[in-house]
Amino acid sequence: MKIVIIGSGNVAYHLARAFTENKIPVSQIFGRNKSNLQLISEEVHLPYSHTQLEDADLYLICVSDGSISDVSKLIKKDNCLVAHTSGSLPKEILTGNYRKASFYPLQTFSKSVDLNYAEIPFFIEAENKKDVELLQDLAESISEKVMVSTYEKRKYIHLTAVFACNFVNHLFARAKEISDSQEIPFDYFLPLIKETTDKIKILEPKFAQTGPAVRNDERVLKAHEDLIKDEEQLKIYKVMNESIKEMYEL
Amino acid sequence: MKIVIIGSGNVAYHLARAFTENKIPVSQIFGRNKSNLQLISEEVHLPYSHTQLEDADLYLICVSDGSISDVSKLIKKDNCLVAHTSGSLPKEILTGNYRKASFYPLQTFSKSVDLNYAEIPFFIEAENKKDVELLQDLAESISEKVMVSTYEKRKYIHLTAVFACNFVNHLFARAKEISDSQEIPFDYFLPLIKETTDKIKILEPKFAQTGPAVRNDERVLKAHEDLIKDEEQLKIYKVMNESIKEMYEL
Repeated sequence: MKIVIIGSGNVAYHLARAFTENKIPVSQIFGRNKSNLQLISEEVHLPYSHTQLEDADLYLICVSDGSISDVSKLIKKDNCLVAHTSGSLPKEILTGNYRKASFYPLQTFSKSVDLNYAEIPFFIEAENKKDVELLQDLAESISEKVMVSTYEKRKYIHLTAVFACNFVNHLFARAKEISDSQEIPFDYFLPLIKETTDKIKILEPKFAQTGPAVRNDERVLKAHEDLIKDEEQLKIYKVMNESIKEMYEL
Repeated sequence: MKIVIIGSGNVAYHLARAFTENKIPVSQIFGRNKSNLQLISEEVHLPYSHTQLEDADLYLICVSDGSISDVSKLIKKDNCLVAHTSGSLPKEILTGNYRKASFYPLQTFSKSVDLNYAEIPFFIEAENKKDVELLQDLAESISEKVMVSTYEKRKYIHLTAVFACNFVNHLFARAKEISDSQEIPFDYFLPLIKETTDKIKILEPKFAQTGPAVRNDERVLKAHEDLIKDEEQLKIYKVMNESIKEMYEL
């Protein structure tokens, strides 16, 4: 089976690496950004092109959501399988006469961070059983956690990830604003953060909740509100505490 | 120096353990809850009492914020040092003629979770230099990260911790509600969560932000809002995205 990866961003880079590390041959990495492609090609030892899309059995489109439809039109072939890697779009966004699929790795990708690919969950969807199996096999060659998933389900996966990852990172960013303002090294909070995320491996997050809101400690809540000078920080502070109280019926 | 720990909760337990593991003798653990004290005493091999507070040079009060003042009145001695372990109260909450101090470990404590005490930051405050040094030495016998801190600063430390830990845990709890509703194992999100928290060790959280809001992806934001059925989840979703947009001036 000939595989072509389309895209030159972080998802393309990490998928290319994951495949080659697991001895899955990739025929080409194709994209617009020649210098990015060159870098990936050198590191992962793959042929690349930014002009000539190679013939393949499977195209994996690893570009931003807004570009998937346009990029998918570059594939003029009918007898092939095309999958995008977006968590938030249906496979029908792909525009062509080929068989359509979704191949969604649930991970946040940065070029500078090494990943243990075996741990990354993959969610698969395709038009027919054979294609599902093909993509499942492919994902299982990288990862130990592969699940078939409808588009509907994938939307909730993405939403869960936004809460558990994007918003969590933003809380770190807001927390650092506060500690920076007092010249307290943000490093000092890393053990606490590690403990917070370690704890949910053995305890349901609902049962691991600590802090003033779950203790219904109005004195501390009020004192904190007085301490916060930034409007966005204050909005977050209030909404999160209200939500904690609602969850524990306080 | 004779040390007595007052309290029988998670902070008392972990401080008792941290001291004995580091060969700092503790004379007594004192509290109201006899069965808790018994459990700690058996595990950590310390004498305990729920009736007779022993004479000591240093009392460490490890009880909930609301009880510190009352508990501190049990110490009738003048010539001793008394420290509480709260992040959110001044040392003046202590009521007695002894020297007052704060000995604040920045960590979330659960009895069931083992901790690397060497990594836990301690923030110290006392009335005079000698007591500051005494508490600093004591904290440094446990931890590598000890900092002198005023009450004012401690309030911001606590506030930062609420954002980076309590609220983060609550996001995990809300995220799990969403994944549970679709029968997606919450386990699948643990690598993503680990990656999110690993990333901030090498990258400032502000520069590690991903997700629809920082991409200003109105389509996904709107689709997610339509997907969310729970009122509290929706409030969090909106406030966090607004705050992300504000931070990146989108």
